[in-house]
Amino acid sequence: MSRADAIVVGAGISGLTAAWRLARAGKRVKVLEANQRVGGRTLNHRFSSGDVVEVGGQWVGPTQERILALLDELGLETFPLWNQGDNLTLFGGKLKPYRGTIPRFAPHVLLDVLQAQLRLDRLARQIPLDDPGRHPRAAEWDRMSFAEWTRRTLKTAHGRQVMELVSGAVFAAAPHELSFLHVLFYIRSGTDLDTLLGVRNGAQQDRIVGGSQRISEELAARLGDAMQLGQPVRALRQDATGVELVTDSGSHRAERVILAMPPTMLLRIAQEPLLPGWRDQLLQRLPQGSVIKCMALYNSPFWRDRGLSGQVTSERGPVRLTFDNSLPGSSRGVLMGFIEGDEARQWSAVPVDERRAAVLECFARYFGDAALRPLEYVDKCWADEPFARGCYAALFPPGLWSGGAARLREPCGRLHFAGTETATRWMGYFDGAVEAGERAACEVLQRLA
Amino acid sequence: MSRADAIVVGAGISGLTAAWRLARAGKRVKVLEANQRVGGRTLNHRFSSGDVVEVGGQWVGPTQERILALLDELGLETFPLWNQGDNLTLFGGKLKPYRGTIPRFAPHVLLDVLQAQLRLDRLARQIPLDDPGRHPRAAEWDRMSFAEWTRRTLKTAHGRQVMELVSGAVFAAAPHELSFLHVLFYIRSGTDLDTLLGVRNGAQQDRIVGGSQRISEELAARLGDAMQLGQPVRALRQDATGVELVTDSGSHRAERVILAMPPTMLLRIAQEPLLPGWRDQLLQRLPQGSVIKCMALYNSPFWRDRGLSGQVTSERGPVRLTFDNSLPGSSRGVLMGFIEGDEARQWSAVPVDERRAAVLECFARYFGDAALRPLEYVDKCWADEPFARGCYAALFPPGLWSGGAARLREPCGRLHFAGTETATRWMGYFDGAVEAGERAACEVLQRLA
Repeated sequence: MSRADAIVVGAGISGLTAAWRLARAGKRVKVLEANQRVGGRTLNHRFSSGDVVEVGGQWVGPTQERILALLDELGLETFPLWNQGDNLTLFGGKLKPYRGTIPRFAPHVLLDVLQAQLRLDRLARQIPLDDPGRHPRAAEWDRMSFAEWTRRTLKTAHGRQVMELVSGAVFAAAPHELSFLHVLFYIRSGTDLDTLLGVRNGAQQDRIVGGSQRISEELAARLGDAMQLGQPVRALRQDATGVELVTDSGSHRAERVILAMPPTMLLRIAQEPLLPGWRDQLLQRLPQGSVIKCMALYNSPFWRDRGLSGQVTSERGPVRLTFDNSLPGSSRGVLMGFIEGDEARQWSAVPVDERRAAVLECFARYFGDAALRPLEYVDKCWADEPFARGCYAALFPPGLWSGGAARLREPCGRLHFAGTETATRWMGYFDGAVEAGERAACEVLQRLA
Repeated sequence: MSRADAIVVGAGISGLTAAWRLARAGKRVKVLEANQRVGGRTLNHRFSSGDVVEVGGQWVGPTQERILALLDELGLETFPLWNQGDNLTLFGGKLKPYRGTIPRFAPHVLLDVLQAQLRLDRLARQIPLDDPGRHPRAAEWDRMSFAEWTRRTLKTAHGRQVMELVSGAVFAAAPHELSFLHVLFYIRSGTDLDTLLGVRNGAQQDRIVGGSQRISEELAARLGDAMQLGQPVRALRQDATGVELVTDSGSHRAERVILAMPPTMLLRIAQEPLLPGWRDQLLQRLPQGSVIKCMALYNSPFWRDRGLSGQVTSERGPVRLTFDNSLPGSSRGVLMGFIEGDEARQWSAVPVDERRAAVLECFARYFGDAALRPLEYVDKCWADEPFARGCYAALFPPGLWSGGAARLREPCGRLHFAGTETATRWMGYFDGAVEAGERAACEVLQRLA
């Protein structure tokens, strides 16, 4: 049995950040990763043209200070997402151009949406980031789904549809899956709604040169022999002096363990002693969002010739949200689209050829028939990923925060919890992953000292 | 490696019914049970006085034809729950007696509650039991939580409180955890609201002589050597000719497998090939309800002397619902109380002495100070049970039924699914467990033939 001061389970950004902080502090650390690769919910894809895109998380933006500092430390550079030209929106059966974040709706719809946005931002500012359940109105807001709030607050059907699209884009889920309190927390966690939704000055502003999986690759390279791939942890035993981790190929022992994975995956490791009942029950209530990220490579970004930015918001699926994911310095064009929530579950069960056809049809609806003939196509159903089982992140349904979900980031004996879902700032994003990894590393350092 | 035609995983009522049907049809069957006992979510407790009570599920009632037939087949007898005298209700700070299912509320509250009940029953009658998602208004009703419907429909705060109590009593969950469509389905599945909530002519009418765990014990006895206890299945591999099941002590092989366990437990068995993404995602969204069942044994059922039935519904927790669980032929008295939902999670983290004190205080509030001095006390937090992780059953949140949850009972390759959560009639009850077990056995028999 091999020994370490600390073992980190999960080599996504959060786990690797934790491991690297521990290693730099002189601790004997080991990282056990279930997959044969690092990166967690980030994953690069190389088209045969050489263009590298991401089929997982890809963006960073302003106010995400922790991930930006980490990029700096790792010597990784960013470049802005293509964001010139007209965006398109398909609503009420019509395709219309617009600039900025919010389409040019009819005045009464615009009023409806802007009032909702202001109200969300105003309420969000009051939410305590360390524990939304402490807000005086937490119980009231946490009993309500985002869908119910939307039905109560927005006066137009069109406005409510916009909120559904926001829910898909930000959470990869439908409004009825989310606690209203969680939506407020998430907005505050990501600064405000404009920042969450925006490209320029927003969470979709910048991309990482070489692809976002490079973050984890760089960290893993620094960890050297500490990194072990293809080691799913099946069982875990805590005793008076440490923790034993059992993988398919052997046992590992450490004084402390950091679990850096989506909440639902924690339930899939047999534990001795059992996780306390309340913790298991809360984790049972934290499902992953569902998304299929789709990309088509073209000879050129032909939509730019028509003055289009490649960004679409649409009432018709399966792809309701697109971006221009082309790379600077490449002559090729890349269209990227998201299939979210229920549609992602449905389309994940469809053969890839059919899915490809449906996605390209969406692209053609927005950008013309040239979109039907890509050089290559790739997509990724995150529900099928064995050790993520969904993306972007876990969803907090009604009742979780007021039921004590903030305690999920507290250690449990010798176990510490990382992963973006345990972050207070930018939960669900790379930045949250870094915060959580650094916090978990700190906890462990204090105990080891 | 040992071989069988079929292996059933889980020796609760559902799994054992399936196994017994297969065995009687001449198939070589094996049952692997994780615990060192059979019974699943039924569990007998013997007080030192010899009185046997149940700390798990305990009731059967009219229209539950499958479980009643099974009891008959097994030679088990029933007796009625004690149901004489006045019930009590604590609402608006006052303790008041009443008879029947619904307390004597103020007229405007009574009107509010009765109108809600009629509406629920009327809508429930329309729900297709095989797939609630097929109802023309399924999408609309499934986007809404039971909490939202309650807020929209009931006009009095008191009436809404009653609905919360109903939600706790029937689901061991808060109204905001449940899809309104699921509540309608559940009511239809259990006939109507009166039947679900009632003692006489209802789901709480009868108990089983010797305790409900006897059902599983009798079935297990008939299965003889086919029964293997203490064998948690950790991994499962399907190939072209069968399924291999891996436990801590070895491997088992069969042509077909029936998984008879709560949905959340399915996620905790490593599978090859992986469960399809849509199935994993839906299972992530099916958490268990949460309940602590508490019982105190007294020298006599002293509350009966004051003409009380032992049945209470209360606005104050932790015990908001009680019954007289004394046994006929015994001079002792047994008070039984339920702690549900969030309160069950909170109180499960409290040392048992403190919990005991809080429960007895509730009993005393309802029945006088004599309740503070029991001969014995026992309770059971079902969230702590390693292979159930909650009771009574799984909760269907908004979006599940319209998202295709009915397909969860379809076989997945050589895997078949039992457990009360896959039933159409009396889902969540013993009767549903039997239906599901018989259906799964039928599926397997057709494939083996």
